[in-house]
Amino acid sequence: MRTCPGRILRYNASGAPAAAVAAARNGKAREKTLTMETLNPQVKAVEYAVRGPIVIKAGEIERILQEGGKKPFTEVIKANIGDAHAMGQQPITFLRQVVALCTFPELLDSPSFPEDAKRRAQRILQGCGGRSLGSYSASQGVDCIRQDIAAYIEQRDQGVPSNWENIFLTTGASDGISILRLLVSGEGRARTGVMIPIPQYPLYSAAIAELGAVQVNYYLDEDNCWALDVHELHRAYQAAKQHCQPRVLCIINPGNPTGQVQSKKCIEDVLHFAYEENLFVMADEVYQENVYAPDCEFHSFKKVLYEMGPEYFNSVELASFHSTSKGYTGECGFRGGFMEIVNLDPEVKAQLVKLLSVRLCPPVAGQAAMDVIVNPPQPDEPSFAQFHKEKASVLGALADKAKLTEQILSAVPGIKCNPVQGAMYAFPQIFIPPRAVEEAKALGMQPDMLYCLRLLEETGICVVPGSGFGQREGTYHFRMTILPSPEKLKVLLEKVRDFHINFYA
Amino acid sequence: MRTCPGRILRYNASGAPAAAVAAARNGKAREKTLTMETLNPQVKAVEYAVRGPIVIKAGEIERILQEGGKKPFTEVIKANIGDAHAMGQQPITFLRQVVALCTFPELLDSPSFPEDAKRRAQRILQGCGGRSLGSYSASQGVDCIRQDIAAYIEQRDQGVPSNWENIFLTTGASDGISILRLLVSGEGRARTGVMIPIPQYPLYSAAIAELGAVQVNYYLDEDNCWALDVHELHRAYQAAKQHCQPRVLCIINPGNPTGQVQSKKCIEDVLHFAYEENLFVMADEVYQENVYAPDCEFHSFKKVLYEMGPEYFNSVELASFHSTSKGYTGECGFRGGFMEIVNLDPEVKAQLVKLLSVRLCPPVAGQAAMDVIVNPPQPDEPSFAQFHKEKASVLGALADKAKLTEQILSAVPGIKCNPVQGAMYAFPQIFIPPRAVEEAKALGMQPDMLYCLRLLEETGICVVPGSGFGQREGTYHFRMTILPSPEKLKVLLEKVRDFHINFYA
Repeated sequence: MRTCPGRILRYNASGAPAAAVAAARNGKAREKTLTMETLNPQVKAVEYAVRGPIVIKAGEIERILQEGGKKPFTEVIKANIGDAHAMGQQPITFLRQVVALCTFPELLDSPSFPEDAKRRAQRILQGCGGRSLGSYSASQGVDCIRQDIAAYIEQRDQGVPSNWENIFLTTGASDGISILRLLVSGEGRARTGVMIPIPQYPLYSAAIAELGAVQVNYYLDEDNCWALDVHELHRAYQAAKQHCQPRVLCIINPGNPTGQVQSKKCIEDVLHFAYEENLFVMADEVYQENVYAPDCEFHSFKKVLYEMGPEYFNSVELASFHSTSKGYTGECGFRGGFMEIVNLDPEVKAQLVKLLSVRLCPPVAGQAAMDVIVNPPQPDEPSFAQFHKEKASVLGALADKAKLTEQILSAVPGIKCNPVQGAMYAFPQIFIPPRAVEEAKALGMQPDMLYCLRLLEETGICVVPGSGFGQREGTYHFRMTILPSPEKLKVLLEKVRDFHINFYA
Repeated sequence: MRTCPGRILRYNASGAPAAAVAAARNGKAREKTLTMETLNPQVKAVEYAVRGPIVIKAGEIERILQEGGKKPFTEVIKANIGDAHAMGQQPITFLRQVVALCTFPELLDSPSFPEDAKRRAQRILQGCGGRSLGSYSASQGVDCIRQDIAAYIEQRDQGVPSNWENIFLTTGASDGISILRLLVSGEGRARTGVMIPIPQYPLYSAAIAELGAVQVNYYLDEDNCWALDVHELHRAYQAAKQHCQPRVLCIINPGNPTGQVQSKKCIEDVLHFAYEENLFVMADEVYQENVYAPDCEFHSFKKVLYEMGPEYFNSVELASFHSTSKGYTGECGFRGGFMEIVNLDPEVKAQLVKLLSVRLCPPVAGQAAMDVIVNPPQPDEPSFAQFHKEKASVLGALADKAKLTEQILSAVPGIKCNPVQGAMYAFPQIFIPPRAVEEAKALGMQPDMLYCLRLLEETGICVVPGSGFGQREGTYHFRMTILPSPEKLKVLLEKVRDFHINFYA
């Protein structure tokens, strides 16, 4: 695999005293062991646009501004990543109170903390070794938090049973996705294929590349508001079977980057398909609280599976992911999340626990944050009113911003923007004139990368090129978050509009 | 790779309506996609004894006791894992104050928190997006925390320069070890070999198995207090070269599970060897604060490398790991840690940042905890006295317990226990009579597994068999932590003594 004669020579010298070896090198610098040539090729294949070159460039520009450099703008607006607090969203008070109480239990005696927050903290601490957030939890997470999550799921799914022993706390949802590791095997045509939507959240393509699995693209229907069409699943599956063994079907609902919310009928079709083709379903449902369009509703894959009857509910292997990072809490930094796994083979489940145990446990403060989300203040508790006011305020503002984004962008000639039904992103199609496409090609760059770089350089707005998420050939997009404050978002959208008109002309 | 005719049949039926497929099955349960047959074989190969079968058994016994069941003891003592708080160690007040202040910044107005804790919290929050612990940090960690870590390392290493851009915060040290991913490549004889000590901490063998790298064992010298002998490194390396390409050398100092502290001379020899053989050195130094033997001292690999001169300091690729979980803080649950990487090829470093960015960032509360460790109260600050009292109390107790453990165990006939110079474990050799070895073999079990299971069932003491860490053939050991309170530890050790005498007879 490697041709590195200097190195082989060095091996021959092994055993000789180091000084002699150094002398033999005649002052030549010692080669590095780890270079781009010797790097794990699967690592090399990983791409992650959300923090890719455009974001590195944004950081450079920020530094220039800080150091007093001149740009045609005074501030970089990072609309590249769903990082709510960084955009000024305030934390939910109750959540932070509970986590602070768990962190510093002396505060349990403080009269300035409400009783319901103290009760939550005490319950969590009772589930921790030595009643300390500083103990390792079980690898699957703290038992009582897993139980709270199961109760929350049962309530969310109107009584569909949830077994807490199927709940695994994770280090954010990104960590949960690594369950994919279990599913990758085989060589050549028997290699595991993983079906992912296009456009997708690039965590999926990155995980597939790192594991050396086969990425199987199914395209979402941009003309139909980015809906998933089951015929396209069939097409992609049949085509993939020629060169790999599709075994996993990934779904993101509500959609990232599309903002689409799947209908119940669509989910039924998908689950039928997975049942027929024996696919393991990974349902990324981290935006389950983020539904804004009045005619849309979140349906969990698990609930729909249940309603399809026991033949389905007792057989389709399904992992569903949730997170503290999205929803109305936006607590990305705590790296909290969970997955629920149903119909997992018991022996495989033991293997999963074993694998998780190597990393010991997810961060316990993040587990505590997750517990607040699934066990919020109840109507008879003192924090109820404030909690719900804060939650409604965040979700209301997001709904307004989703509408504003669609309105302004879809009115721009040369931009086509579907409604942002849910999640935190718009993924507008941008029409790029042929001359700019040629120019990008000459620079060895995707045309939408060129577009986003220009946008950044001229306006300070940082969005991610559609090529980082995948798109039909010959179409171009970008992903932007709807997280900036309403005032800032309006300015941002107007700047994008002006830039686009200019760029297009 | 897989022979699964029923499944192939199912593929032929693909595209048919699900109901028809279900009918075709004649009521037979649908096969699972993910079974022990289709599971990723590298996942199957992973073993992690610290939370392995013996710990699962301990959990079962605990449940029996809780439900009023009878056992010859009233409590399970978990000496299997270095989980200080679970064993009753109290958190360092200052650390928890800072993290609580970061979590709930309203407390910055509270008179009950000291000013130095507030200053630390404010500094950390200034480094966070939106001044919130809930924002993603940069993938490498919060800049100012990375700077504090670099300053700490410079002080620890008496002026050896540390560049904060080489510091990467991690989700505990276990996450840092996954840098190994970068280093695994090649097939057959070109496949990456990773040299690890035997006995080792099983995170290493687990990571190697999952990555499909080649594990290259070098044996520590039990008769010389578990010291590392560089001749053994040469032997292991030469032998491994016949079937793989050794590229990585892992060192654990102070040793886990051995408790050994390496001399400066030893570290020099190791670094000479790594230099000669072009090996990437991974130095697990998470127990750097845990040195108890009066004639031992912690020397960082980086400092020793520096003192060997620029030819070495500017060339040997070295990653060093630290953690909030050990030392005197024992904050395992926060999953805080960092690695410092020197001499990494700049392009490879960019690849590492890319890879880390897929997981977004380490938990920010854990980063804050790490910051306190590297930036503790100074003599002129109000929390100085209490901080140092608490720190000295934890480390003093550990030193006493290290001594007590060695004293009691080494006096037992049929047990040989080296001094516990550092870290948190004893790894005594136990002599197992041939009849018990036969019995274990008949049960398909390692003899030390049988020993530890019996110990657990008869006394409630949970320790980990030496076979989970590796040991020379025909020798048997167990690993136990020295973390229980002095009273409990004494009882534990006496029970082990009585059990052993009985078992041996």
